[in-house]
Amino acid sequence: MTGKQEAAAKVREKKTELGVTWAQLAEAVGRPVAWTTSALLGQHPMPEREARAAVELLELGPDVLHALRLQPTRGALDAAVPTDPTTYRFYEVLQVYGPTLKELIHEEFGDGIMSAINFRLDVRRAPDPKGDRVVVTLDGKFLPYEW
Amino acid sequence: MTGKQEAAAKVREKKTELGVTWAQLAEAVGRPVAWTTSALLGQHPMPEREARAAVELLELGPDVLHALRLQPTRGALDAAVPTDPTTYRFYEVLQVYGPTLKELIHEEFGDGIMSAINFRLDVRRAPDPKGDRVVVTLDGKFLPYEW
Amino acid sequence: MTGKQEAAAKVREKKTELGVTWAQLAEAVGRPVAWTTSALLGQHPMPEREARAAVELLELGPDVLHALRLQPTRGALDAAVPTDPTTYRFYEVLQVYGPTLKELIHEEFGDGIMSAINFRLDVRRAPDPKGDRVVVTLDGKFLPYEW
Amino acid sequence: MTGKQEAAAKVREKKTELGVTWAQLAEAVGRPVAWTTSALLGQHPMPEREARAAVELLELGPDVLHALRLQPTRGALDAAVPTDPTTYRFYEVLQVYGPTLKELIHEEFGDGIMSAINFRLDVRRAPDPKGDRVVVTLDGKFLPYEW
Amino acid sequence: MTGKQEAAAKVREKKTELGVTWAQLAEAVGRPVAWTTSALLGQHPMPEREARAAVELLELGPDVLHALRLQPTRGALDAAVPTDPTTYRFYEVLQVYGPTLKELIHEEFGDGIMSAINFRLDVRRAPDPKGDRVVVTLDGKFLPYEW
Amino acid sequence: MTGKQEAAAKVREKKTELGVTWAQLAEAVGRPVAWTTSALLGQHPMPEREARAAVELLELGPDVLHALRLQPTRGALDAAVPTDPTTYRFYEVLQVYGPTLKELIHEEFGDGIMSAINFRLDVRRAPDPKGDRVVVTLDGKFLPYEW
Amino acid sequence: MTGKQEAAAKVREKKTELGVTWAQLAEAVGRPVAWTTSALLGQHPMPEREARAAVELLELGPDVLHALRLQPTRGALDAAVPTDPTTYRFYEVLQVYGPTLKELIHEEFGDGIMSAINFRLDVRRAPDPKGDRVVVTLDGKFLPYEW
Amino acid sequence: MTGKQEAAAKVREKKTELGVTWAQLAEAVGRPVAWTTSALLGQHPMPEREARAAVELLELGPDVLHALRLQPTRGALDAAVPTDPTTYRFYEVLQVYGPTLKELIHEEFGDGIMSAINFRLDVRRAPDPKGDRVVVTLDGKFLPYEW
Amino acid sequence: MTGKQEAAAKVREKKTELGVTWAQLAEAVGRPVAWTTSALLGQHPMPEREARAAVELLELGPDVLHALRLQPTRGALDAAVPTDPTTYRFYEVLQVYGPTLKELIHEEFGDGIMSAINFRLDVRRAPDPKGDRVVVTLDGKFLPYEW
Amino acid sequence: MTGKQEAAAKVREKKTELGVTWAQLAEAVGRPVAWTTSALLGQHPMPEREARAAVELLELGPDVLHALRLQPTRGALDAAVPTDPTTYRFYEVLQVYGPTLKELIHEEFGDGIMSAINFRLDVRRAPDPKGDRVVVTLDGKFLPYEW
Repeated sequence: MTGKQEAAAKVREKKTELGVTWAQLAEAVGRPVAWTTSALLGQHPMPEREARAAVELLELGPDVLHALRLQPTRGALDAAVPTDPTTYRFYEVLQVYGPTLKELIHEEFGDGIMSAINFRLDVRRAPDPKGDRVVVTLDGKFLPYEW
Repeated sequence: MTGKQEAAAKVREKKTELGVTWAQLAEAVGRPVAWTTSALLGQHPMPEREARAAVELLELGPDVLHALRLQPTRGALDAAVPTDPTTYRFYEVLQVYGPTLKELIHEEFGDGIMSAINFRLDVRRAPDPKGDRVVVTLDGKFLPYEW
Repeated sequence: MTGKQEAAAKVREKKTELGVTWAQLAEAVGRPVAWTTSALLGQHPMPEREARAAVELLELGPDVLHALRLQPTRGALDAAVPTDPTTYRFYEVLQVYGPTLKELIHEEFGDGIMSAINFRLDVRRAPDPKGDRVVVTLDGKFLPYEW
Repeated sequence: MTGKQEAAAKVREKKTELGVTWAQLAEAVGRPVAWTTSALLGQHPMPEREARAAVELLELGPDVLHALRLQPTRGALDAAVPTDPTTYRFYEVLQVYGPTLKELIHEEFGDGIMSAINFRLDVRRAPDPKGDRVVVTLDGKFLPYEW
Repeated sequence: MTGKQEAAAKVREKKTELGVTWAQLAEAVGRPVAWTTSALLGQHPMPEREARAAVELLELGPDVLHALRLQPTRGALDAAVPTDPTTYRFYEVLQVYGPTLKELIHEEFGDGIMSAINFRLDVRRAPDPKGDRVVVTLDGKFLPYEW
Repeated sequence: MTGKQEAAAKVREKKTELGVTWAQLAEAVGRPVAWTTSALLGQHPMPEREARAAVELLELGPDVLHALRLQPTRGALDAAVPTDPTTYRFYEVLQVYGPTLKELIHEEFGDGIMSAINFRLDVRRAPDPKGDRVVVTLDGKFLPYEW
Repeated sequence: MTGKQEAAAKVREKKTELGVTWAQLAEAVGRPVAWTTSALLGQHPMPEREARAAVELLELGPDVLHALRLQPTRGALDAAVPTDPTTYRFYEVLQVYGPTLKELIHEEFGDGIMSAINFRLDVRRAPDPKGDRVVVTLDGKFLPYEW
Repeated sequence: MTGKQEAAAKVREKKTELGVTWAQLAEAVGRPVAWTTSALLGQHPMPEREARAAVELLELGPDVLHALRLQPTRGALDAAVPTDPTTYRFYEVLQVYGPTLKELIHEEFGDGIMSAINFRLDVRRAPDPKGDRVVVTLDGKFLPYEW
Repeated sequence: MTGKQEAAAKVREKKTELGVTWAQLAEAVGRPVAWTTSALLGQHPMPEREARAAVELLELGPDVLHALRLQPTRGALDAAVPTDPTTYRFYEVLQVYGPTLKELIHEEFGDGIMSAINFRLDVRRAPDPKGDRVVVTLDGKFLPYEW
Repeated sequence: MTGKQEAAAKVREKKTELGVTWAQLAEAVGRPVAWTTSALLGQHPMPEREARAAVELLELGPDVLHALRLQPTRGALDAAVPTDPTTYRFYEVLQVYGPTLKELIHEEFGDGIMSAINFRLDVRRAPDPKGDRVVVTLDGKFLPYEW
């Protein structure tokens, strides 16, 4: 039995071996690149057609196809506070700007949250003469507290 | 002696009492609203002119002015995993999409990080007929691993 | 300055002193009893009219009125795992039945969650000859994962 | 030797492979669906007849039958605070409404708890024009503190 | 406002000052000594008559009387693992004999628990020529798992 | 090499397969049932004669015999706070009654502890018309603080 | 009310102010220096005579006298792993040599422990041409596991 | 590849099988028994001659010889707070006497630490009519804080 | 009574108020700037002359003088993992390069440690056309493991 | 599939077997020794030429070559607080001097951090008649907070 973690490891391995990018996988799958990456890393269930497209491009077997389609138990950090510096910076943003995010959401929308379910994100490069920038857009539906 | 936490508490209290918004504070201060909010919540030191503008609008005293100018020891979460639902959703994004952010940064930029120091963020409302959306933009300089 | 925790403490104290019940407070406030209780314990901001009704019934002052209206930073457990037996039993339900809840939601609704924001709950007594029962109803909008 | 976790993994795998639902398993087993799901996920010991019915429907072997009948050591969360968003929302309910549940139980019943042992739960869909709702009913015997 | 912790501290202080024992307090209160001790330490709400008897014997004021009557939020350990050696030994018993207790309860009673709600305990001295012994009796109703 | 955990797992498995009880094992071994259970679960080293009697009754091999005789590194909880409800109730007793146990030991014996080394425990059923009771007796030598 | 922590703080303060050493305090008290130090730091209850001698030498008041006599709740580390380097080295000894201590006790004495209750310790200077040495002697009664 | 943990397990197993003691191993190795035990348990690298002597006495192979010679990453407790009672008592000594050790070192030596690197320890039996005693001597070079 | 934390807070406050730098304080004290800063922040005891020089320059009172001279209980992080980004980067260095530091010390010096007691550190600016650099030098005596 | 941890283990093993030093590996690879060590321990991705040079010197296979080239998820400590004494001393430096580092960076550079990304480190031996010293240089670009 191949679980979602084993499938993700095989995806990463084959992707490197074949020199396939996440962008190419996303194109083959026909979905945005961030969704495709998350799904192939085991954080979303993939519909059969999308899973099949990825598996074929990566020359993987039916066990991976099956695993990609399963409903995941989500949660990808190996510790409450991530140790990898690339990932940690996002946690640091939360430590430094968490209350700011909360205040500005409440000021603009009232009491409620940005959904992380009805949600999409995007990572892009913004050219800058002083050094290009990573621009991450988090885009979630506002959900007001309603009884 | 008024520390940055006490100053932040007084800012919040007066802001509510006087009905001043973060946007109005940012305008008075002459800086972006997210920066102004973070600084008033004690996560950035404020230059004298900016601190004075905020303190005057909020009818606060020189102890708050002094505290706002101090160099902070940053870190605003009261626990490693935040309990407030509005804040938690950003932690959840990290749990579900952390490895995706890491993969896409590496694919686009190579080995390195999005700086959380040379960094700005923005929160805005995106109107949507199915329910308006919270759009948060994280924008940090890419820093490559260099020895 | 009276914060939401101090306000909650005063509410509990006056409520006991005056012999007022949560049900009577809810009636005065004009909202369901579980919402009213949560709000008076500092987990929801109260609109002015509702806060005023509660404060008057409890013979409390304007500082409490002000605190009840503030936007809360939510989270009421004093530890990740609660120690009070009445509260712990709900954590135990999560330890024993958490995966069951997840499976049954996915089987009935597909990939998504029960919202804890667009959400209401209710506690009632169900008479039973073998001993009356506590029946808690958790009722939240289903939110499907949507990109 | 097949333990309860391995048995649960095999149940999930075969269930997906054969397209059997928890509801069908519950019908075959002759018990409520939430109980059946918990038991098959390893949180309750199954009597022989019930275990046999499930094993037959799922075309599993005697090792799984044996494992399902064993007395479990319960506890299904992989961390004190669950990371999966579907499961986390129930923890969030406890963070936001835990003291409310405690107050309302004490107001209605006096000092005591809702049993999590003499207990049943149910998950159902409540149709709603603004979006169907997940309704979870927790139903436990009240146990008064008695010396 | 005197909370249950302050009341417990005052009880301990006065008890030492006046040379009153827990046994004498229990006699005055008319309840078993372990129940009386727990209640005066803030882990049980006391009925008015019992609270009044204790308060009078200890020459304490109405604020303590009021606090003793309140419904407690239980949980007396200051850390998940207690540091005081006298208390730690009971935790050590759980580390060494926890699975034994579980096995023997299941062998004798089937699937279920010893209630800690419908429960009493007793501490007594058993004379022994090799050194007197502390004998603690935990006595709780068996609660079978019932759906 | 078979360690004490593997031996305990084999004991549990064979015990279930052969329908042998802990009481029968204790009788064969010639020691009290709680001691025998703890030792077979790996928390005490067994003398050769006792280990051999258990291994023979359970039709196990010399590797288990060897493992049962080894000096253990004790500690059986898989987390600081146990998650299994049957085991948790004893932890809850400690949370609610820990300071009571400490006070009553000190009142009766002075400064010192109940030994968990020179110690025995017993679990028995006490018939009760309102529901039979689990009675656990903890019986340890009092050890006074002596310099 | 002066608790044991406040008393310890006052002892330390006065001791520095008056230039009194722990050795002088031990002489005045008439007990070994390590016991005296522990007791004055709040980890042992002091008999009246000893407490009075210490309080007089330190020119402290009756509130400290009273606090020193109280039964302590022991445990002096402010975190599970101590941060102070002088104290940490003893924790490091446990990390590096803990299993060695366990093996050598079992080899010499059989199954059991070194008591930390019937126990004394001593710190002395051992002159050494390569640098004087701290010699700490831990001396506790062996307690065999006895049922 | 045999790591230091596997080597330690094999040492323990063979030692029991052959009935060899730590004292005999120390004699064969030609080093103190506590050092020898720590080294064979993987907390010190062994020079070739010493490792070879131990391996020969224990009839072990070259993989163990190789592993014993490796530089270790030290740290032998499986949790921050040890659960085994024999080991825990040393942690308890630290909880109760840690500040005493610190005070007495500072009083005798000034600001600095007892080295745990330039360090030796010894465990011996002290006969005592009231029960023999475990005497552990910790002997480390004093290191003064020097800039 | 002014403890070392209160003294540190007063030092920071006065230093900002008077516009005194750590470098000026070090010059007045006559010690290196890093030592002086650590000592004034409460991590080293200060000799009387040095403490007096600092107190005079900062126009502080005798309570601060007294506190600066006390032996500290060291440890300045408010959590095991620091949240402030400036401090966190040093923790990150340990996460990424800890094993490298260990390997290179062992390769050059053999088994042992860099002392953090016989130790000094220095922070300086290294001009660089691509952006000036922070250069931190950690300089500790090598201590070989010696029995 | 060989991951970066398995590759690091093989590197360490072969390095010991062949008697190759980190310095020799660095020379073969043509990069500084600290970078080479970190990369071979799995904390940096290695370019193909460098990885090939290391693999050839260590007589390892193409699976290690492949693993060394992969992008790592960084973080090498097995616990938040390291237990190995050689590594712990660096954590202790952070506990004792963390705030000093922060103050001196801010005094010299203003608000910002020492980069741990644009960063190099070096370990060298400084001969000293009182005992040679470990000198570790941390050298990172200063990054000012910029919005």
